Amino acid sequence: MRVLGVDPGLTRCGLGVVDGLPGRRLRMVAVDVATSEPGLDVDQRLLLIERRIEEYLEEHAPDTVAVERVFAQHNVSTVMGTAQVAGLALVAAARRRIPVAMHTPSEVKAAVTGSGRAEKAQVQEMVRRLLELEVAPRPADAADALALAICHLWRPAGALGAPQRAPGSLTAAQRAWAAAEQAARRRA
Amino acid sequence: MRVLGVDPGLTRCGLGVVDGLPGRRLRMVAVDVATSEPGLDVDQRLLLIERRIEEYLEEHAPDTVAVERVFAQHNVSTVMGTAQVAGLALVAAARRRIPVAMHTPSEVKAAVTGSGRAEKAQVQEMVRRLLELEVAPRPADAADALALAICHLWRPAGALGAPQRAPGSLTAAQRAWAAAEQAARRRA
Repeated sequence: MRVLGVDPGLTRCGLGVVDGLPGRRLRMVAVDVATSEPGLDVDQRLLLIERRIEEYLEEHAPDTVAVERVFAQHNVSTVMGTAQVAGLALVAAARRRIPVAMHTPSEVKAAVTGSGRAEKAQVQEMVRRLLELEVAPRPADAADALALAICHLWRPAGALGAPQRAPGSLTAAQRAWAAAEQAARRRA
Repeated sequence: MRVLGVDPGLTRCGLGVVDGLPGRRLRMVAVDVATSEPGLDVDQRLLLIERRIEEYLEEHAPDTVAVERVFAQHNVSTVMGTAQVAGLALVAAARRRIPVAMHTPSEVKAAVTGSGRAEKAQVQEMVRRLLELEVAPRPADAADALALAICHLWRPAGALGAPQRAPGSLTAAQRAWAAAEQAARRRA
């Protein structure tokens, strides 16, 4: 199962491709940040980002595209561009009949760190551990795109865009975190 | 000069094509409202609306696409879909190298009625008069799309997305309104 995570943004749009299955080992396939200069007209900026998303879909042929769910309340100054880029990702997937899912930022944080209110650095570090990378992916947009893909891969069977979990049980992320900590202790 | 006006929306997206030149007689070429059912997934809804926009671009080959500028403050419940459809219209135009412009709702109202705070019914009636139609275009989204195209056609030379006017002078819309009223009096 291959998931393209998209952290939408007009200035920086994170793109991360991860292979994996629920609760199983993950493999990072590709990561990038599509960018557009704020000085350009918005239609040209959207076109640049759309092309990069299209290239990723062509090159990596994901089974699902997971897009961060954008809320109107957050960051009013940038939310319109963010919503527009999210829309482009959704429609680019739909054109290719690739299923899409949307996950909220707190769902994504909870999936990789166990806490919906984790700091960016913690998300980056967990993405690094879970994907067994030497260094954490930067900028944050790159790590967030990978975290989205991980969130989607690890969602419970049957859940679509909104992961749920049985209260009291370890999440896939918590199990992986525990395993990663054990492995780190063995190496130390 | 042919302008496609797009009043973006996920449930109803107004599309109106108008031929004309600043201060000259206008001709309605086409008008429609692209729709998508709220019960569908958002990616499928965006795809349906995008296809209709693409069809309009193919069929009517506008010189410019004028899109309503969406603000994050307004209608929080629908603003994300509206922003996404606006983005689709912008990028569909950009893909074809068609210039785009954005006009605010109050610019559009001012362009066709002389008042930025005009009611919907007044906009519909002015669109009917200016395009010399028997009945006003309905629903409001259709009239708004035509009003956007008119707003763009009548913007002062040199202005791009934000029409300005010399204080104290009649706007093109005011001149046309006066002419339409004169014509109506002659007919009566």
